[in-house]
Amino acid sequence: MSDFSIGEKFKVTLFGQSHGPAIGCVMEGFPAGQKINWDFITAFMARRAPGQNAWSTPRKEADQPEVLSGLNADGLTCGAPLTAVIRNSNTRSGDYNVLKGIPRPGHADYTARVKYGDAWDGRGGGQFSARLTAPLCFAGALAKLYLEDKGIRIAAHIARIGNVEDARPDTVNPTLPFYENGAFPVISPEQGEAMKREIEAARSQGDSVGGAVECFITGLPAGLGGPYFGGLEGKLSQALFGIPAVKGLHFGDTQTYGSENNDAYCIQNGAVRTLTNHCGGILGGITNGMPVYFTVDFKPTPSIAMPQRSVHLKTMQETELTVQGRHDPCVVPRAVSVVEAAAAIILLDLILQGA
Amino acid sequence: MSDFSIGEKFKVTLFGQSHGPAIGCVMEGFPAGQKINWDFITAFMARRAPGQNAWSTPRKEADQPEVLSGLNADGLTCGAPLTAVIRNSNTRSGDYNVLKGIPRPGHADYTARVKYGDAWDGRGGGQFSARLTAPLCFAGALAKLYLEDKGIRIAAHIARIGNVEDARPDTVNPTLPFYENGAFPVISPEQGEAMKREIEAARSQGDSVGGAVECFITGLPAGLGGPYFGGLEGKLSQALFGIPAVKGLHFGDTQTYGSENNDAYCIQNGAVRTLTNHCGGILGGITNGMPVYFTVDFKPTPSIAMPQRSVHLKTMQETELTVQGRHDPCVVPRAVSVVEAAAAIILLDLILQGA
Amino acid sequence: MSDFSIGEKFKVTLFGQSHGPAIGCVMEGFPAGQKINWDFITAFMARRAPGQNAWSTPRKEADQPEVLSGLNADGLTCGAPLTAVIRNSNTRSGDYNVLKGIPRPGHADYTARVKYGDAWDGRGGGQFSARLTAPLCFAGALAKLYLEDKGIRIAAHIARIGNVEDARPDTVNPTLPFYENGAFPVISPEQGEAMKREIEAARSQGDSVGGAVECFITGLPAGLGGPYFGGLEGKLSQALFGIPAVKGLHFGDTQTYGSENNDAYCIQNGAVRTLTNHCGGILGGITNGMPVYFTVDFKPTPSIAMPQRSVHLKTMQETELTVQGRHDPCVVPRAVSVVEAAAAIILLDLILQGA
Amino acid sequence: MSDFSIGEKFKVTLFGQSHGPAIGCVMEGFPAGQKINWDFITAFMARRAPGQNAWSTPRKEADQPEVLSGLNADGLTCGAPLTAVIRNSNTRSGDYNVLKGIPRPGHADYTARVKYGDAWDGRGGGQFSARLTAPLCFAGALAKLYLEDKGIRIAAHIARIGNVEDARPDTVNPTLPFYENGAFPVISPEQGEAMKREIEAARSQGDSVGGAVECFITGLPAGLGGPYFGGLEGKLSQALFGIPAVKGLHFGDTQTYGSENNDAYCIQNGAVRTLTNHCGGILGGITNGMPVYFTVDFKPTPSIAMPQRSVHLKTMQETELTVQGRHDPCVVPRAVSVVEAAAAIILLDLILQGA
Repeated sequence: MSDFSIGEKFKVTLFGQSHGPAIGCVMEGFPAGQKINWDFITAFMARRAPGQNAWSTPRKEADQPEVLSGLNADGLTCGAPLTAVIRNSNTRSGDYNVLKGIPRPGHADYTARVKYGDAWDGRGGGQFSARLTAPLCFAGALAKLYLEDKGIRIAAHIARIGNVEDARPDTVNPTLPFYENGAFPVISPEQGEAMKREIEAARSQGDSVGGAVECFITGLPAGLGGPYFGGLEGKLSQALFGIPAVKGLHFGDTQTYGSENNDAYCIQNGAVRTLTNHCGGILGGITNGMPVYFTVDFKPTPSIAMPQRSVHLKTMQETELTVQGRHDPCVVPRAVSVVEAAAAIILLDLILQGA
Repeated sequence: MSDFSIGEKFKVTLFGQSHGPAIGCVMEGFPAGQKINWDFITAFMARRAPGQNAWSTPRKEADQPEVLSGLNADGLTCGAPLTAVIRNSNTRSGDYNVLKGIPRPGHADYTARVKYGDAWDGRGGGQFSARLTAPLCFAGALAKLYLEDKGIRIAAHIARIGNVEDARPDTVNPTLPFYENGAFPVISPEQGEAMKREIEAARSQGDSVGGAVECFITGLPAGLGGPYFGGLEGKLSQALFGIPAVKGLHFGDTQTYGSENNDAYCIQNGAVRTLTNHCGGILGGITNGMPVYFTVDFKPTPSIAMPQRSVHLKTMQETELTVQGRHDPCVVPRAVSVVEAAAAIILLDLILQGA
Repeated sequence: MSDFSIGEKFKVTLFGQSHGPAIGCVMEGFPAGQKINWDFITAFMARRAPGQNAWSTPRKEADQPEVLSGLNADGLTCGAPLTAVIRNSNTRSGDYNVLKGIPRPGHADYTARVKYGDAWDGRGGGQFSARLTAPLCFAGALAKLYLEDKGIRIAAHIARIGNVEDARPDTVNPTLPFYENGAFPVISPEQGEAMKREIEAARSQGDSVGGAVECFITGLPAGLGGPYFGGLEGKLSQALFGIPAVKGLHFGDTQTYGSENNDAYCIQNGAVRTLTNHCGGILGGITNGMPVYFTVDFKPTPSIAMPQRSVHLKTMQETELTVQGRHDPCVVPRAVSVVEAAAAIILLDLILQGA
Repeated sequence: MSDFSIGEKFKVTLFGQSHGPAIGCVMEGFPAGQKINWDFITAFMARRAPGQNAWSTPRKEADQPEVLSGLNADGLTCGAPLTAVIRNSNTRSGDYNVLKGIPRPGHADYTARVKYGDAWDGRGGGQFSARLTAPLCFAGALAKLYLEDKGIRIAAHIARIGNVEDARPDTVNPTLPFYENGAFPVISPEQGEAMKREIEAARSQGDSVGGAVECFITGLPAGLGGPYFGGLEGKLSQALFGIPAVKGLHFGDTQTYGSENNDAYCIQNGAVRTLTNHCGGILGGITNGMPVYFTVDFKPTPSIAMPQRSVHLKTMQETELTVQGRHDPCVVPRAVSVVEAAAAIILLDLILQGA
């Protein structure tokens, strides 16, 4: 029933509000005896951090996590819950003062107030803020590192910005990762440039634009997941729909007719494989040993510079508001690593469960 | 960690295999003192039942549930776990004998064998069979009945068969239900006829065809759900991806740009409403009091009459197989009530939790 | 939040009411490919069954479970949820008619009515009835069988009836099982005779008597359990306090002073052992490889033949009632196998979790 | 499956190691809009703090929690997870250096090493340390405060030190709290003095002594809890056995014979009550509206000044060790508030669940 916990044997609990003293996470069940590769974690978290380029908000965050527990004197994981804290700073709380009592369309302002009442800490979106994806990425980085040691790779790319789509990867033998060429991970550089123009166009009009992230996972053993509610799709979906602004999710690339959608089996190097991979590596909720992949749809960020119609919740009068502050015109580029992090957490959990 | 349980305070556990003695479910936490409306349940379950028309398998099932516990001597729910059992019959196990050791493409045959070993009861797909959606519909019917008494309506329609799409409903003030006009619930009768032709075309070629179901829920209070992993999208997704053949899920009808996707607030009859409903009634994972709606994508049923390439798992030789038996050329029409059932179970659970 | 489910990876859900059509259980997560030893199960369940001797109720039950799912055509577990149903019969519902609206002291009659309202099926205690320990024993028998194959033995004895105590077993090297000498498992035959006299004395006066069951588990690996709320004591306690009439639980035989309670370590056959075993094989919530043992206290059965003071819940008048029917004057002898079953379920769950 | 989380709707997750940077807790589901009474919390936590008198370790801890999230700008709970951190200091890690590789009898040193390997941070007991009961008390204080506003009081006293027992409270109409007379909460001052002598006697011999805490809860509504594994005894037991050094638990004061153990019903002021309260306010796992009470047994603290036999885990040789440092000769006085905290957390969870 917890809103901020995900996973069972490997469990991650997020905490914090956007403008409170700190955000962070507690990780339970991470295996003991692991060395923390801080370079890897810093690089992974930097992919999500804002303020690094033209496509994202100029707000800068240090986002250096402090580890409060879970490491021994030698810096190895020790089996205790691993807690990391990121102090909030540079929050410019004045940006949102105007919003008191006037919910921003597309944000959680109204629904949060219904659920929590007037005590809700709405500054910067409170606990709904995408800022909590920073500790999610910290936890995901550790999970990813552990999985990579087992030969399991997770890599996502920007599949779509507005109506501009990236090139399709090879779904049977994808070349991972997609993001080594820079901070804007795409397969086709040309399409990447067109996407950036799409973002710039939205920004110049004070608008925002949505898109999609596609994520691949290779090296998974066959047999992971289960029938019905234990299916890998369902397990991943709970984590992925937890990411702010996610509204859709699709596994594989389903074809219209069974004759083209069914993936024929073959034997390759003595192992069972499929010739195509429309099912996205999952049959009956269980991995078949082929690459797992899925696409996550993000809505356009609701923070836009244009005036919008809203209401005064206290006076119940209609009104107009303009959202202040600087915001990403598109969350998709920064969300690529968040999708990887969420997938890594779920997969590590399942692997530790032996499920 | 359970594959066959869904929900927390209202929890449904499915059991059974396609060709075992029986299938059924245990429902925990259903409120005591409720009268069971058997006409409603029978009618609801009949919508899922096979063999009733040209678009579904001619296999007939009685599917009359026997209640083993949970009712008192007067037939009211008594607070004890409510257990319903449906005996299997008319199973023609010979249909699948040929499949021993040769996995059918697109089915769980291979992945189930990896997970459970040779003891897996593969007849009819075992516990992966869509037949277990019958007890799911039984549980969903009870949940739906309870919710309707609270003014909450759940109704789905066939949104797409192959490339033929139904008309779009009004997402702000939808007219529910969609299915009173017959067993093929669509908004546009013309599009419905085109869909039937699409199914018939697939069948005549020994092929199958996929599609989509769209589900609406009206009457929900604002404030249901939560941030991050407690979001209503994530809760529903776990149940919906548990339905066999589901590969995709999308909430609302996300628009490309923030300026068109944000739903402006207004006051109507003294209540906060939105002028449009692109967010599908959910903001920050929490209901805003507008209709909730989502679309569920179903892959084409993998059982097709054409010869397909597969492998012998024992000899590890490639081979060809032809799936015997009679199968639905399209699961979507029968899946409409299954989607409603899954949604009803999750919503009742959240409402009983006060979440 | 489920009242009738226990375990996580291996999960058992009980269902049924005392006088409904049937009771039973669903077992999820039991390993596939296991042969069911029906002789073992029948013998184990017979130890709990009533009506077999002078110390228990003359009410006879067939208690033959029918398996509805979870076995393949060869009778091996197949990985699907394993469901067993026991039909109710010989229920003599007239016995309790007098009790309508007048709660029996010591039973759940009053509290159940507060929780479930008038629809509660109070016949025979409804879902509170100890009759649901029959399917618990079925599940426990399967778990016990699986554990014994791994060298893990679980055996309990009657530790106390009233004020008559059994002899103390060797807690470092106990000789298991205790019950091969008959249906009244004790270590000291003399004390066993004194216990039977205690039960007979209570019965002859229309009274009942409480007692205790002590349970030993040998062959457990060191390292099972965890700190704080993951401790083995807490895991076992949730199952053991779920058994009707249990009011107390103690692990090991705690001594007054640290100098006598601490178990000194030694090396035996190259392995770490302790010279004494006051901690009951658990330190910091984790097994240390020594025998685990604990004592479960049962209150005297509340069904006694003497007149008792109670109230009319409808008229809110005080009144007197006499409980009709035949009842165990002492539940302890039949509870010995129930304690073993509950322990077996929890231990199998932990072992499958790798915890 | 989490070792450090307890509760469902109100969930508390502990974190930290004894000698790591910090310990703390995350509380999910605490109601929004509550004012934090810091005086109450400080006073409650002070009851657990060490170093305040002759019966406890002279080690002083500031134990001032810093709140990182969960409060709004006005200091009210805002609905976000409430995170509190207590920095570690005054840890004198040299005390335990000698213990590397030589497990202290009665502690978790050996079992932790089996479970976590050599990376386990054994300084001060790592995550097994009773120091983590400080954040548990912080969470418990908030829960207690909330419950007291609803008229629910929780109060415990020292029931036994060694063989010295406190006087018995009135179990039908207990006078709460027991602890207003000082830091050593007992009902009988004379027995309290005898208990202190017992502790002093153990200390003077370099020994330790065990005891018991009895806890009462008044003002609970009837109907809280459930049958079988949903019983209040089982819910409380999981939290209480999570407290370090707890080995036993008993609800009510069970009498030998049914005729004396059954609590007769009566009508008082128009309400159903019982004349006696041997069942401890719980029947069939559900509260009956009478005071709930239970006794928790604590083993003597394993840290004693006498030489003890142990083993070198690396060389697998037997050896002798002497535990350095200053330790409580008896944990019971400080554990009184910890028992109250654990009970408060579980009860708040159940009440928020509406269970």
